[in-house]
Amino acid sequence: MEKLREIVREGRRVAKEDPRRVVHSFKVGLVLALVSSFYYYQPLYDNFGVNAMWAVMTVVVVFEFSVGATLGKGFNRIAATLFAGGLGIGAHHLASLSGRTGEPILLAIFVFLQAALSTFVRFFPRVKARYDYSLLIFILTFALISVSGFREHQVVVLTHKRISTVIIGGLSCVLVSIFVCPVWAGQDLHSLLASNVEKLSFYLLDFGDKYCEMVEDGDTKEVDKRKKDFGNYKSVLNSKSNEESLANFAKWEPGHGHFRFRHPWKQYLAIGELVRQCAYRIDALNSYLIADIQVSIDIKKKVEEPLRRISLESGKAMKEMSISLKKMIKPSSSDLHVQNAQSACKTLTSLLNSGIFKEAEPLELISLLTAISLLTDIINLTEKILESLHELASAAKFKNKIETPVFAEKPNAKSIVCGRPTKCHDDHVITIVHDDGKNDDTSKKDNLSKEFTIHEKHEDGVTHVHSSCESCGHTSLRVVVERS
Amino acid sequence: MEKLREIVREGRRVAKEDPRRVVHSFKVGLVLALVSSFYYYQPLYDNFGVNAMWAVMTVVVVFEFSVGATLGKGFNRIAATLFAGGLGIGAHHLASLSGRTGEPILLAIFVFLQAALSTFVRFFPRVKARYDYSLLIFILTFALISVSGFREHQVVVLTHKRISTVIIGGLSCVLVSIFVCPVWAGQDLHSLLASNVEKLSFYLLDFGDKYCEMVEDGDTKEVDKRKKDFGNYKSVLNSKSNEESLANFAKWEPGHGHFRFRHPWKQYLAIGELVRQCAYRIDALNSYLIADIQVSIDIKKKVEEPLRRISLESGKAMKEMSISLKKMIKPSSSDLHVQNAQSACKTLTSLLNSGIFKEAEPLELISLLTAISLLTDIINLTEKILESLHELASAAKFKNKIETPVFAEKPNAKSIVCGRPTKCHDDHVITIVHDDGKNDDTSKKDNLSKEFTIHEKHEDGVTHVHSSCESCGHTSLRVVVERS
Repeated sequence: MEKLREIVREGRRVAKEDPRRVVHSFKVGLVLALVSSFYYYQPLYDNFGVNAMWAVMTVVVVFEFSVGATLGKGFNRIAATLFAGGLGIGAHHLASLSGRTGEPILLAIFVFLQAALSTFVRFFPRVKARYDYSLLIFILTFALISVSGFREHQVVVLTHKRISTVIIGGLSCVLVSIFVCPVWAGQDLHSLLASNVEKLSFYLLDFGDKYCEMVEDGDTKEVDKRKKDFGNYKSVLNSKSNEESLANFAKWEPGHGHFRFRHPWKQYLAIGELVRQCAYRIDALNSYLIADIQVSIDIKKKVEEPLRRISLESGKAMKEMSISLKKMIKPSSSDLHVQNAQSACKTLTSLLNSGIFKEAEPLELISLLTAISLLTDIINLTEKILESLHELASAAKFKNKIETPVFAEKPNAKSIVCGRPTKCHDDHVITIVHDDGKNDDTSKKDNLSKEFTIHEKHEDGVTHVHSSCESCGHTSLRVVVERS
Repeated sequence: MEKLREIVREGRRVAKEDPRRVVHSFKVGLVLALVSSFYYYQPLYDNFGVNAMWAVMTVVVVFEFSVGATLGKGFNRIAATLFAGGLGIGAHHLASLSGRTGEPILLAIFVFLQAALSTFVRFFPRVKARYDYSLLIFILTFALISVSGFREHQVVVLTHKRISTVIIGGLSCVLVSIFVCPVWAGQDLHSLLASNVEKLSFYLLDFGDKYCEMVEDGDTKEVDKRKKDFGNYKSVLNSKSNEESLANFAKWEPGHGHFRFRHPWKQYLAIGELVRQCAYRIDALNSYLIADIQVSIDIKKKVEEPLRRISLESGKAMKEMSISLKKMIKPSSSDLHVQNAQSACKTLTSLLNSGIFKEAEPLELISLLTAISLLTDIINLTEKILESLHELASAAKFKNKIETPVFAEKPNAKSIVCGRPTKCHDDHVITIVHDDGKNDDTSKKDNLSKEFTIHEKHEDGVTHVHSSCESCGHTSLRVVVERS
């Protein structure tokens, strides 16, 4: 009874984690019930005979969770059945030429050779990744058809029936998986990458504050809390195999949503690899957040400001990259954040050069300097991820960020930027900083440090003002026309 | 033509990488040819009819590379066929009670419910890991049997034939995979872990020397060479999924070689995880070996000795652990190496405490201190791996190291240890250091630093002298009996 309740609880958890799983189960049940009925009904049964069961088998084996996996398997199965069917008929014909005694021996040799060779080819890494299932079906169909024990005419009829039923089964799976609540592996890969980048961004956004906060000795509660709060990134460490299989499936998928057929899925793997590298560094960094040797507050205070800024800015860059991925718009402000982080890093280096740590304890120093060095690594990796993302953005033709250009209210003024507070996508108020440094909404002045603005002056007298909302990372653009 | 030559080259590479792959291919070909003939011959064919093809299908699908995978799949397939066969007959019986019109509807509902439920259960992580294939076959067999369109009597006969042929196919796979050149997943997991530990040990044994060597600026040749020489450990980083699937297969395997059934395979995964963690640190460390900011030779000289010792001793500990794993003997000298590494670490800390770096450049200092901190992490992880290995050794009943105890030549002397140079397994000469510090083979004195000896004085007047060969890590033991 307790066991049963546990199973129900587990089932609820699995369904809640991804409700599409429930839909998928219904889809499989539906297609199978349909194809089984097809097998059951007499008139159809008379036509295909026992071979109708191949349709049922195909459905059970081919229907996978994502469209890509189903398409890949369906294609593999149909192609392999066709090809092996042809070869099997050939082998059967050859063997039958050699008379009553020679035939079984020759057939056994054919099957042996074919199976041994195909099994060996399955070990080729590139074949294993994409055509493993093809070869399995190839071995199977060849053996079944060449050794079927029928006469040649019958073998051709048999092969024809088998292929038709396999195609019927395969097609029903593919059609249902594409047209009834499709689960696209490509979309999943896309979301996975965006959410991985986001997880790292959350870590980095919080790291600076938490690192500079003091933990009292023996405060195990706080340490446990940190372990829990900051453990989110850990799933990124082992995302490699998941990403690779999704990318393999995605290659089979037709265009869907924002993705065309031949979307640069490979670039996702490249970015994913860099993101994982960054996660390894964060994993190392994390041990300093919860380590027993804590750096004393005096020493931390000396580097607090640049350290916070490095972590915050690289976090912001990550956050914007994840949003850019999610919405498929070109990342624009990330470059600025990376630059900010790098300049904070330089500040930190010159601080260190000024010799402020001459009197620090070596153990503290090790701990602190390692954290700094890891943060430097993280910035460099962030920059690399950004480069990769730019490549992806141009290969996948991400849109530019300009959404609703608003012209300034005073088009005649020189170099004036609209200062009206605007709202970003999530309705956080953004206050735009004036070009001349004034903020027209003075009551919001304390918000200043929480935003950033970039002014791009174009040659035709137009200024683009990008503003980014601190709370959600969304950005808005205003276009100001300068008239002289 | 060029394409073909490339395929042949790839084939040769795949075969050379693991020659058992070729043997496996032959085994599959053989079994399939045998079972196909069985399907072909008339008398047998008359008995089983078309159902004989299930034997062929079972062979193709069940025969996997390792014994464990084959056993697991075979067991899954047979159990699922039996269970689904029983349920299918029940469903068929229930449906037939409801008359001509109700039957197909009821059957379709049964198939739908069964398929939907089973597909959903396949998403449970624990089920997916071990019984995914079971459920697939369950769905398949249930659908095929319940909807077979025959009368009840025929259904029972059909089920019986199907189950027998599946058992025939499954058994032939299992028997051949166990008795003809078996590939044990357990053995593979064992070797994989040992070789992973060995790879890390090679890295650590060389790291100290290479790190303290100076690379001239712009010597890209040396940097490239290092990248190549020191990249061996990288395969350890992504070994997780491989280890997990091997452990899953190994659970199915009967006792073989030194492994009993229910060998603690789970502990291998625990050690593997720690080894991977250590590899992550080494990956971070590696970037300092080939980084552009090299620490100046003056600074390195100051810490050279303890740094070399840390790296060497942790490398030795790893090396001994890998040998201990390979030979399944209890690791004895690793503890000593870890202790040595830790004491070298303390030396280093006190060096740092003495303030020898007051005049160092901050950037150099960061690089150096990070390397030191990573090495400290590596020692701690080495200790954890050793603990885990001790647990494994006692759970798996590893042998003690005592192989051929040699009694001392002068049993009457007090506390005298045989000083004759002995040979370790790989014929490297080991010179044993006397208890009193004298080395009887004075010409070998320069070898002293390259060995280590432990003297365990037991209460019954027996002294165990463990000696370890520097070159191969093998250890020998001499037992000295003290007579008063």
